[in-house]
Amino acid sequence: MPYDFENTTMLTDFYEFTMANGYFENGAAERIGYFDLFFRSIPDGGGFAIAAGLEQVIAYLENLRFTDEDIAFLRQKGFFGEHFLQYLRDFAFKCDVWAIPEGTPVFPGEPLITVRGPMAQAQFIETMLLLSVNHQSLIATKANRIVRAAAGRSVMEFGTRRAHGASAAVFGARAAFIGGCVGTACAIAEREYPGIPATGTMAHSWVQMFDDEYEAFRRYAELYPDNCVLLVDTYNVLKSGIPNAIRVFNEYKPKKMGIRLDSGDVTYLSKTARRMLDDAGLSRCFLVVSNSLDEYIIRDVILQGARIDSFGVGERLITSRSDPVFGGVYKLAAVETDGRIEPRMKISENVEKITNPGFKKVYRLFCRKTGKVMADLIALAHETPPQADGFEIFHPSFTWKRKRLSNFYAKDLQERIFDGGKLVYKSPSVEEIRTYCAEQIETLWEESLRFENPAVYYVDLSRPLWDLRADLIQKYKLAFE
Amino acid sequence: MPYDFENTTMLTDFYEFTMANGYFENGAAERIGYFDLFFRSIPDGGGFAIAAGLEQVIAYLENLRFTDEDIAFLRQKGFFGEHFLQYLRDFAFKCDVWAIPEGTPVFPGEPLITVRGPMAQAQFIETMLLLSVNHQSLIATKANRIVRAAAGRSVMEFGTRRAHGASAAVFGARAAFIGGCVGTACAIAEREYPGIPATGTMAHSWVQMFDDEYEAFRRYAELYPDNCVLLVDTYNVLKSGIPNAIRVFNEYKPKKMGIRLDSGDVTYLSKTARRMLDDAGLSRCFLVVSNSLDEYIIRDVILQGARIDSFGVGERLITSRSDPVFGGVYKLAAVETDGRIEPRMKISENVEKITNPGFKKVYRLFCRKTGKVMADLIALAHETPPQADGFEIFHPSFTWKRKRLSNFYAKDLQERIFDGGKLVYKSPSVEEIRTYCAEQIETLWEESLRFENPAVYYVDLSRPLWDLRADLIQKYKLAFE
Repeated sequence: MPYDFENTTMLTDFYEFTMANGYFENGAAERIGYFDLFFRSIPDGGGFAIAAGLEQVIAYLENLRFTDEDIAFLRQKGFFGEHFLQYLRDFAFKCDVWAIPEGTPVFPGEPLITVRGPMAQAQFIETMLLLSVNHQSLIATKANRIVRAAAGRSVMEFGTRRAHGASAAVFGARAAFIGGCVGTACAIAEREYPGIPATGTMAHSWVQMFDDEYEAFRRYAELYPDNCVLLVDTYNVLKSGIPNAIRVFNEYKPKKMGIRLDSGDVTYLSKTARRMLDDAGLSRCFLVVSNSLDEYIIRDVILQGARIDSFGVGERLITSRSDPVFGGVYKLAAVETDGRIEPRMKISENVEKITNPGFKKVYRLFCRKTGKVMADLIALAHETPPQADGFEIFHPSFTWKRKRLSNFYAKDLQERIFDGGKLVYKSPSVEEIRTYCAEQIETLWEESLRFENPAVYYVDLSRPLWDLRADLIQKYKLAFE
Repeated sequence: MPYDFENTTMLTDFYEFTMANGYFENGAAERIGYFDLFFRSIPDGGGFAIAAGLEQVIAYLENLRFTDEDIAFLRQKGFFGEHFLQYLRDFAFKCDVWAIPEGTPVFPGEPLITVRGPMAQAQFIETMLLLSVNHQSLIATKANRIVRAAAGRSVMEFGTRRAHGASAAVFGARAAFIGGCVGTACAIAEREYPGIPATGTMAHSWVQMFDDEYEAFRRYAELYPDNCVLLVDTYNVLKSGIPNAIRVFNEYKPKKMGIRLDSGDVTYLSKTARRMLDDAGLSRCFLVVSNSLDEYIIRDVILQGARIDSFGVGERLITSRSDPVFGGVYKLAAVETDGRIEPRMKISENVEKITNPGFKKVYRLFCRKTGKVMADLIALAHETPPQADGFEIFHPSFTWKRKRLSNFYAKDLQERIFDGGKLVYKSPSVEEIRTYCAEQIETLWEESLRFENPAVYYVDLSRPLWDLRADLIQKYKLAFE
């Protein structure tokens, strides 16, 4: 059954098995480890990303189990002993999981998800956590850029046919809605997530099947008098499509009426179409445009005075075409020895790949007066959260860059999702997530919202975390000199 | 169940329902229509694409049925009458389907799939056909570019964590294998498609968990003496990783041994690592590199003398990052009236969006002497296939560009897949498809294989098709003047 991914336990990099087996054989399977899921840069050079995909992470973790077929598959690979296979058969998820809720604006380096649990388990779940969060955060972030470019006009997600497979279509529609789209063309997305309206009218083939365009429009208007959107570019927009649409609108007077342009110079065509419709007394007819759009084209056509009420955005949204990779990673931050947390970090040849060690929390500091964000702070979990007045933050690389903050409140961004393997969190509905996302973006400074060269929002490290990191780098550096 | 896409019938653009209902209500649901699935341009400016995704199209069509839940969902939308819903409930696929087999090099304008059947059905299946073919053709095409760049070195697909959802990971691994990758990191891909080897060794977290790198390597070598690949860049490649690997290889003498580099200047590091390994008598140790690679970087590092035996390619393959959209479309080409085929076409404001009318076949002309391709020809289905000697082809836009071909044989590229809704085709195994793909690429001229400015391979129209197209354009043109 090629589309049956009900259980995605086996959707994992094979090295998760070789490592899990290694931990098991070395008696380290139950040793407690701490992993962080974070990303290093924002797609499209944007000022912030939007966290998404947590609901699918939860569904995955809730359904984590190995079937007999999975075990048989692993056995024939010839790498694993029967004790390990039995261990997998008895697998019961026992980790603690904290995560930043979906819809939250997030920044590089922040742990979107923190997992604490037996090494063999906490390691194993890496691939699906990354897959879900990377995909949906990518699309939610892109959708929000496009929605911001549309400056109040509605944006629909139209990309199903260009999505990278079935899950890309469905969860892409979900993420696009979280990022601010008003709906999708994808029918199953509404069936799965009833808050996301799925809509659609006609393709060119509808128009082509009838003997002429007027006939095609008339039949459609008869059938859908409540909401009649006509596709006007099958033959000739200005000489045929718009005149036929006007004739049909005047004859059938549908409750809601609109036209859709899917090709050509949409700025020019929309202005001319608007004039023709207005001249015909159809000022309430709205214009939908859908033709390889993205945030840059939308901003451009609006600047040029295009008269568009609604955008249908397809391939450039559903694939995040201009930057289709969200580079989330999942790194070991600490292990426990006799209940003591030992920090771990990766040094790497590429400086930007150095990780933050230890069991951490991430706080967002909001101004009590304006409600706007002031800074984010990553601290060690045992530290007291930053308190009200007179808290000094400093730049993690240029430490002489310091700033004293006052009159703020600090919010722990992560929520507890699993407690010892037990789900203790209920995902909000997609509509609630979408509303929360819009509210949280309101707390950002508009300098973060620019498409080009947005202000860099500082994620600072607490002094104890900064010291720990510096000490470890120094320790490794000395070891190799 | 968020990952349950066993039945993807509802994974469709909502307009397929509004149109199907329209055909139904207008008595046109059973009228016979002809649709072509084709693409207009090759990703990355390449010389050819590779068709893929047909096996998933077949699975979709075989499982096409509406559940009670689907019907209930459609009912509450309030657009559809009970007769139409009953029609959907009784839905039984009855179309004829022809398709170019997976793994075939294909060119713009060629019907990869042709569907003939009742309008309501032939139209409805549009979205999933496009989704499957667009996704897998994209990845197979990209994988082949990367494999060609590697010039005989092996390429593994490593991108699961950056794929756009679960299906993107699994079918992406499948398509990458068809395009020439030797395997994948994705475990479930091998379970679903046993011909695709899934492999993997260790992440940085394995190294970090142990007290030191030597210990981590030693434990791994003890466990996997048959195939021991060590990740050497957790701390310092040249000062720590390679020396520790050499020590462990000499102590444990694994049957197969390798090192993996995942960061830094891989050209410099691979050359130095190669020297260090050779000096230690480990010339049989191979080098794997995986760090944001694509065809351009691979070609570059090879040109610079990097000593790499195998490439692990992740995000830039699984998302086709430099061009993540395969723009396949699905267009009505004809309808039947009283058994007579009436051609249909879309004119459009964008000239390149004009379609080829009629029920068509696509032929590939192979030179009898060299076995190389000479040209592809799209003809009307009722035409006699181009015969052996003295066949003249001409450029569809610059018709004075003509060429007389002789000593060739013509192959009908499409195979019959469904006959009146009955499956009459058996998909080859992924290994067979991969082999067929490599053989077919051998029939292309090397001018088509370039990355930059490849030779344009001509897809010509037969004279009757060209005339039909010109007549229809003229007819529509006159209608609007």
